Amino acid sequence: MSAGTTFQPDMAHSSEVRPSADFDGAKSAVAAFSKTRSATQALCAPLQIEDYGVQPMPDASPPKWHLAHTTWFFETFLLKTFSKGYSAFHPAFEHLFNSYYNGVGEPFPRSRRGHLSRPTVDEVTAYRQHVDAEVCALLDLAEQGDCWAEISRILLLGLHHEQQHLELLLTDIKYNLRHNPLHPAYVSGSHGAGSGEKEVAGLNPSEQIQHKPLGFDAFRPGLVEIGANSGFCFDNELPRHSVFVRSFALADRVITNREFLAFMDDGGYRRPDLWLSEAWANRQPEDQHRPLYWRMHDDDWYEYRLEGGLSKLDLDAPVVHVSGYEAAAFAAWSDARLPTEFEWEVAARDQVICGNFVEEGVFHPRPLGPDNKQLFGDVWEWTSSSYGPYPGYRPLPGVLGEYNGKFMSSQWVLRGGSCATPRDHIRSSYRNFFYPKDAWQFSGIRLAKDL
Amino acid sequence: MSAGTTFQPDMAHSSEVRPSADFDGAKSAVAAFSKTRSATQALCAPLQIEDYGVQPMPDASPPKWHLAHTTWFFETFLLKTFSKGYSAFHPAFEHLFNSYYNGVGEPFPRSRRGHLSRPTVDEVTAYRQHVDAEVCALLDLAEQGDCWAEISRILLLGLHHEQQHLELLLTDIKYNLRHNPLHPAYVSGSHGAGSGEKEVAGLNPSEQIQHKPLGFDAFRPGLVEIGANSGFCFDNELPRHSVFVRSFALADRVITNREFLAFMDDGGYRRPDLWLSEAWANRQPEDQHRPLYWRMHDDDWYEYRLEGGLSKLDLDAPVVHVSGYEAAAFAAWSDARLPTEFEWEVAARDQVICGNFVEEGVFHPRPLGPDNKQLFGDVWEWTSSSYGPYPGYRPLPGVLGEYNGKFMSSQWVLRGGSCATPRDHIRSSYRNFFYPKDAWQFSGIRLAKDL
Amino acid sequence: MSAGTTFQPDMAHSSEVRPSADFDGAKSAVAAFSKTRSATQALCAPLQIEDYGVQPMPDASPPKWHLAHTTWFFETFLLKTFSKGYSAFHPAFEHLFNSYYNGVGEPFPRSRRGHLSRPTVDEVTAYRQHVDAEVCALLDLAEQGDCWAEISRILLLGLHHEQQHLELLLTDIKYNLRHNPLHPAYVSGSHGAGSGEKEVAGLNPSEQIQHKPLGFDAFRPGLVEIGANSGFCFDNELPRHSVFVRSFALADRVITNREFLAFMDDGGYRRPDLWLSEAWANRQPEDQHRPLYWRMHDDDWYEYRLEGGLSKLDLDAPVVHVSGYEAAAFAAWSDARLPTEFEWEVAARDQVICGNFVEEGVFHPRPLGPDNKQLFGDVWEWTSSSYGPYPGYRPLPGVLGEYNGKFMSSQWVLRGGSCATPRDHIRSSYRNFFYPKDAWQFSGIRLAKDL
Amino acid sequence: MSAGTTFQPDMAHSSEVRPSADFDGAKSAVAAFSKTRSATQALCAPLQIEDYGVQPMPDASPPKWHLAHTTWFFETFLLKTFSKGYSAFHPAFEHLFNSYYNGVGEPFPRSRRGHLSRPTVDEVTAYRQHVDAEVCALLDLAEQGDCWAEISRILLLGLHHEQQHLELLLTDIKYNLRHNPLHPAYVSGSHGAGSGEKEVAGLNPSEQIQHKPLGFDAFRPGLVEIGANSGFCFDNELPRHSVFVRSFALADRVITNREFLAFMDDGGYRRPDLWLSEAWANRQPEDQHRPLYWRMHDDDWYEYRLEGGLSKLDLDAPVVHVSGYEAAAFAAWSDARLPTEFEWEVAARDQVICGNFVEEGVFHPRPLGPDNKQLFGDVWEWTSSSYGPYPGYRPLPGVLGEYNGKFMSSQWVLRGGSCATPRDHIRSSYRNFFYPKDAWQFSGIRLAKDL
Repeated sequence: MSAGTTFQPDMAHSSEVRPSADFDGAKSAVAAFSKTRSATQALCAPLQIEDYGVQPMPDASPPKWHLAHTTWFFETFLLKTFSKGYSAFHPAFEHLFNSYYNGVGEPFPRSRRGHLSRPTVDEVTAYRQHVDAEVCALLDLAEQGDCWAEISRILLLGLHHEQQHLELLLTDIKYNLRHNPLHPAYVSGSHGAGSGEKEVAGLNPSEQIQHKPLGFDAFRPGLVEIGANSGFCFDNELPRHSVFVRSFALADRVITNREFLAFMDDGGYRRPDLWLSEAWANRQPEDQHRPLYWRMHDDDWYEYRLEGGLSKLDLDAPVVHVSGYEAAAFAAWSDARLPTEFEWEVAARDQVICGNFVEEGVFHPRPLGPDNKQLFGDVWEWTSSSYGPYPGYRPLPGVLGEYNGKFMSSQWVLRGGSCATPRDHIRSSYRNFFYPKDAWQFSGIRLAKDL
Repeated sequence: MSAGTTFQPDMAHSSEVRPSADFDGAKSAVAAFSKTRSATQALCAPLQIEDYGVQPMPDASPPKWHLAHTTWFFETFLLKTFSKGYSAFHPAFEHLFNSYYNGVGEPFPRSRRGHLSRPTVDEVTAYRQHVDAEVCALLDLAEQGDCWAEISRILLLGLHHEQQHLELLLTDIKYNLRHNPLHPAYVSGSHGAGSGEKEVAGLNPSEQIQHKPLGFDAFRPGLVEIGANSGFCFDNELPRHSVFVRSFALADRVITNREFLAFMDDGGYRRPDLWLSEAWANRQPEDQHRPLYWRMHDDDWYEYRLEGGLSKLDLDAPVVHVSGYEAAAFAAWSDARLPTEFEWEVAARDQVICGNFVEEGVFHPRPLGPDNKQLFGDVWEWTSSSYGPYPGYRPLPGVLGEYNGKFMSSQWVLRGGSCATPRDHIRSSYRNFFYPKDAWQFSGIRLAKDL
Repeated sequence: MSAGTTFQPDMAHSSEVRPSADFDGAKSAVAAFSKTRSATQALCAPLQIEDYGVQPMPDASPPKWHLAHTTWFFETFLLKTFSKGYSAFHPAFEHLFNSYYNGVGEPFPRSRRGHLSRPTVDEVTAYRQHVDAEVCALLDLAEQGDCWAEISRILLLGLHHEQQHLELLLTDIKYNLRHNPLHPAYVSGSHGAGSGEKEVAGLNPSEQIQHKPLGFDAFRPGLVEIGANSGFCFDNELPRHSVFVRSFALADRVITNREFLAFMDDGGYRRPDLWLSEAWANRQPEDQHRPLYWRMHDDDWYEYRLEGGLSKLDLDAPVVHVSGYEAAAFAAWSDARLPTEFEWEVAARDQVICGNFVEEGVFHPRPLGPDNKQLFGDVWEWTSSSYGPYPGYRPLPGVLGEYNGKFMSSQWVLRGGSCATPRDHIRSSYRNFFYPKDAWQFSGIRLAKDL
Repeated sequence: MSAGTTFQPDMAHSSEVRPSADFDGAKSAVAAFSKTRSATQALCAPLQIEDYGVQPMPDASPPKWHLAHTTWFFETFLLKTFSKGYSAFHPAFEHLFNSYYNGVGEPFPRSRRGHLSRPTVDEVTAYRQHVDAEVCALLDLAEQGDCWAEISRILLLGLHHEQQHLELLLTDIKYNLRHNPLHPAYVSGSHGAGSGEKEVAGLNPSEQIQHKPLGFDAFRPGLVEIGANSGFCFDNELPRHSVFVRSFALADRVITNREFLAFMDDGGYRRPDLWLSEAWANRQPEDQHRPLYWRMHDDDWYEYRLEGGLSKLDLDAPVVHVSGYEAAAFAAWSDARLPTEFEWEVAARDQVICGNFVEEGVFHPRPLGPDNKQLFGDVWEWTSSSYGPYPGYRPLPGVLGEYNGKFMSSQWVLRGGSCATPRDHIRSSYRNFFYPKDAWQFSGIRLAKDL
């Protein structure tokens, strides 16, 4: 949508869609299941056994835990419910790998996940294989049964759940490797420190791009329909409902490292007027006045990347791993603001979903390319919207009702997916949410303005 | 507005009103100033010197501090700016009594306000008298000057600011007295422990009222105008803007102690499915599974009141001093929800502002009377809305921009005023805000439902 | 004792003395009681009502609390036990003013003493007067009774207890006034900031003194008797027992501000090799690398004093308000060490008890005078001895057994009394004890060396 | 030493022995080095790769860290100092594996040792092999050189250092495995849960032993020599010096689980009069009122052991993993006390050093056998002595001075070694030290009494 375009308020009746399966049958279900499960496993290939267990901060769970928890999800909600005679792979796993479902029992404390040297990686792998085989067997058997709709609905939820953890797996691995003083790379790559000089020379195409000034697309006011309207979605994207959106302008790309450096150089971290009160009261010591993965070395800025490890900062790449507080302060400094999640959705809903996703294997946001507004992929975009229920929101029935609803306080919505998100996981109605202090996700900044 | 009434969407252009003075001139300004300043002082009459200084928790500032800080506000924003040759009453007070205006300098740490035995109450009283005289003198002089509009605008803001602190003064005094094992009353009254028996007998009128079951008024969907449209308002009530509100039902009174007891008796505090994740993770020990000021004694529930001290719980009075988390859990248990702030405003905007305010001198919510929905006064009503900026929001210019905007994260909106609010301080567009964990304000519960 | 003197090991049998009364009868008991009680009260004369209630850190109890607690001691251990028909002055005071005697009941939490605006100062004064009258009446009645010995024993303990709180009253008042940004003086005096210039000029006598270099007295090795041997003492000074003390040298005066400044100027706070591991791990930020009550102002060092408030640092006065960690680091820097409590006692046991005590009304250590080694008064002297039981130690019977014994872990012994100690409270066997991190007592440094 | 024996005060001159090597030459040095290094490695054989990295509490370092740190010690203090041309195995290891030697540089934070997934176990093994080879080469070369005495002195210290970490390795592995809800055994054994029934039947021999009542050996008073007098020792065992010890009685064995259960059954954990003030103030919740590794299951007490995992509690085995606070409370309940470290040394100095050490491969204290007082091995015995410097103590010169001295505050001395101590590591003058709150070492209780 280019500047000046009018959007037409969508007054269609808000149908109360719910997550629904679209599997043709067991065969396609098994195929989807196998593909997603393999994708998770494939991302662990570069790890050492030792990397599977560490938890350098409470939020960054060990890879081993992600592998086991996603398996626990299928075991708990599919096998234990629908698979006759199924007995748990291990009696303690119900407790150990429950993330936060109080309805299933008291979960093992999150902050202590990294204290568990057992089960070993081999045992967790065996757990995955066992559950995978049992799920495939269940799907084959259930195809003709009464529960097929319910089973395929939960299967689909489980696959999207696994995709969420696939991204967390990457962000948690990154946090761990970066905070190790050896800062090992996850995978080697063209951006590695070793190839620093060459790489900067090779940046010529993006050097040109950098001169593209930040533009804004204008949107006229109107009543719009917000929320999912077809296909799978999480309960928090429903119901589709009407929102009146005033005229606004949205930046035509995300903010770059070059722009964020200008904020820093202008003393942005030292000006209380730019910061929310909570952020200022809890501000970090001065040596952490920078995005989470940046480091100064010999008067040059470096950034840790999964691919290649510590690398010279690419000034034209999107700034990433900034907190919501940093995003809001940058926006205030820019005499702009963050968009609401509704504004973002209005701008994104007619866009083709393409961009730099996890399938690219780059694991880092890329400088702006031609014909792209970076709405999808690259970086999650902080919005100014507090994460809350849509009008008429109903959580899923039963224990799965704990999936989303109970987190609807104190967090902010992020939109658009990142370079660590599977391409088929994202959509324009997708609502991600983190605390505004969080920065270890691939989170970046898009500006908005009133018109 | 009775059940089934349709409201007409108000499509009028949202005029960007700003706080503006309506003083006829210096005389009326001085009168308004004197009235508000005296009201604050009058509420301190029952205090002992010792009561002025304590701060039993970081949020509950000492009365002495409130008295000085409201004075500091006039000194800083009126006298130092507009009063020629004015020199500070005391050079250290700029630092000591700055609440949170970083633009004025580094404020004295909030959590240490109770550590200041000096200045004494007498010295603070002298500070008030000095500033009062200077402000009156300034008003007289300025009436014909160029700055009159600006001065009267800031004066008006200062008076509403003082009214906010008048309410905080009462809630902070209550917190202090209640948490003293001697639980002294603030003022003696008919609800005092001494008159317990009689009082319960005297409740007959409300005994009848209690049988009035909770009803719901229905509201049809539509696009409505939200925000202030005339008279004084804070910047956070602006701009007036359009919001699409779905059909909903709103309870025709607030929740009573009797109803909250039923929630407790049904194990409401022990069911994780009713609570937000943050609330459950930080839940209190079991002996605090009750509203903040309740106490069990000889198998009877008592409640601490400013008037009369510890008193037998009046089952028909509104439940008060519940946190937002408790309000949301109660709503979930009731198979209902909290209203959004927009729904509340829709229901309240055409109501006459009457109710149990601080001028009644009861300092406690009262059982429902006839012809009343308790929308104003009695208790602040938790909404489900996160406190955020309205679309197009602009903070006040300069240091006063820190008044509201920087607190727009992690808090929830409350509406309607309480028994500790001055009657002329409240309006249907008024947005109060506290953290959902907070319970020391006069906060209660009104339910809403989807239709 | 001059350098080179031999001391004779005292091999006398260690008689197991216990605190014992030496009152001639009721008349002398009442006189002693009245004198001590009045002394406490007299120290409060300069206070404002507001000063009685604050508690700026958990260890610094409010003056009001000290006044009530010492009264509680007599009420609990004398009146409730021996006074027939005595009923408590107020039923809640047993809980409110119990310091740490679990045998009496759960004490009110120490850290919240400053949250109690009630009882008021007037009510506490009435409490004191009531108990004083009752105690005097009891003494008159009991003189001829069977319990006289027990009563006078407890009375004596209560008076020494009150003297301990008299000193704490002063140190806690000092902490409060100093940490108030207005830094009011407790009493005006010749050292006040206002008289700064003159005072420095007036220092000539001590300027001469400063040139007296630090000397050391030598002591030969031997078996010595340690502990109290006559008169009143606390249980922790008993039993008198033999300790073999190696040859050592003890400094002939305490360390001055001038000497401590040299340590600071030499980077003493930045050298980990000088500090105990606990101290280094918990070291303060750089702007607190100085004794607790020092402040730099316009490139000059100032020190807060009870008398006169913030005053220019007197370089020849003893350094005071240093923690045990600071004392030990200074000693390490000096290529010396702190004395053991036994070495200190060996040096002090034959000295006349004279010095700068609370009766002087100076409330601050003074530069060294002639014919004085500053062993008594001026500053408490940190020793290297952990506070523990003497061999054969037995706590007092009953609840009073909680007086001393249960604190015998993690603290260090200090010796000699200070400028805030009553002269007749101290003796060479007296053992004071604080955590090595504590600095708000009048604590200073004396060096020792091996020979 | 049987009851009633007189010991002869040892008045011999206290020779200032220092750690000294007794190697015949390079060959015996290499042999000792290889033996100790292999012993450490052998204890890791039962571990999974995942077990090497976890740190379930700040004090329990990961096994990988112990393996690397002991290597770092030789690399830093031997190779970097004496091996010409030696370059560090990895530049970051100096920082990563420095425990607390500030003289070498800022150590990596202790509490984050478990956050390091790299270097891997294979890399640490390579580090060990590299340093081992280099040390052996150095020893061969240095045998005839000028530095041989210094090198062999440091080598010997390094070997004793490695033995200390060998014990910590076991206690840290135990802590980890026990706090894993799967509670895996370290090695399988006869005490395992699987063999529970049989084992209890098999306890008959010790059932008889249990009837041996606790006896006390009496010791007459006198001046004794305390501290090391020949062979290797740590600096904290010096200088040998005279201490006057009063008559006392020492229990003839350590306390059993049966006896500790009696304390618990008598409400020992709920009686404040038995506990030090610090311990009571920080007491654990009621479900942790038991030794650290005990668990109640189906009304039976179980205990976690390295050998066999969770096992039925052997009532006749020594109680182990109690804190100093628990030991002192038990002693108070027994109307006894803990011995001083001097009393313990007096009783132990003429005993043959035999007992249940790590070489037994049992890794758990055993019931009392015949002809044994359990002074050595089985459990470390808490003393009442605060850990402090002996009179005349001098730390080692240079950075190694940080080895012991800087920890001499707030800790208590333990004596005698445990079932996790190498037999040739212990001696009667050996002083171990931990905070009185610590319970994860193999620490037990021996009583003493005054005579």
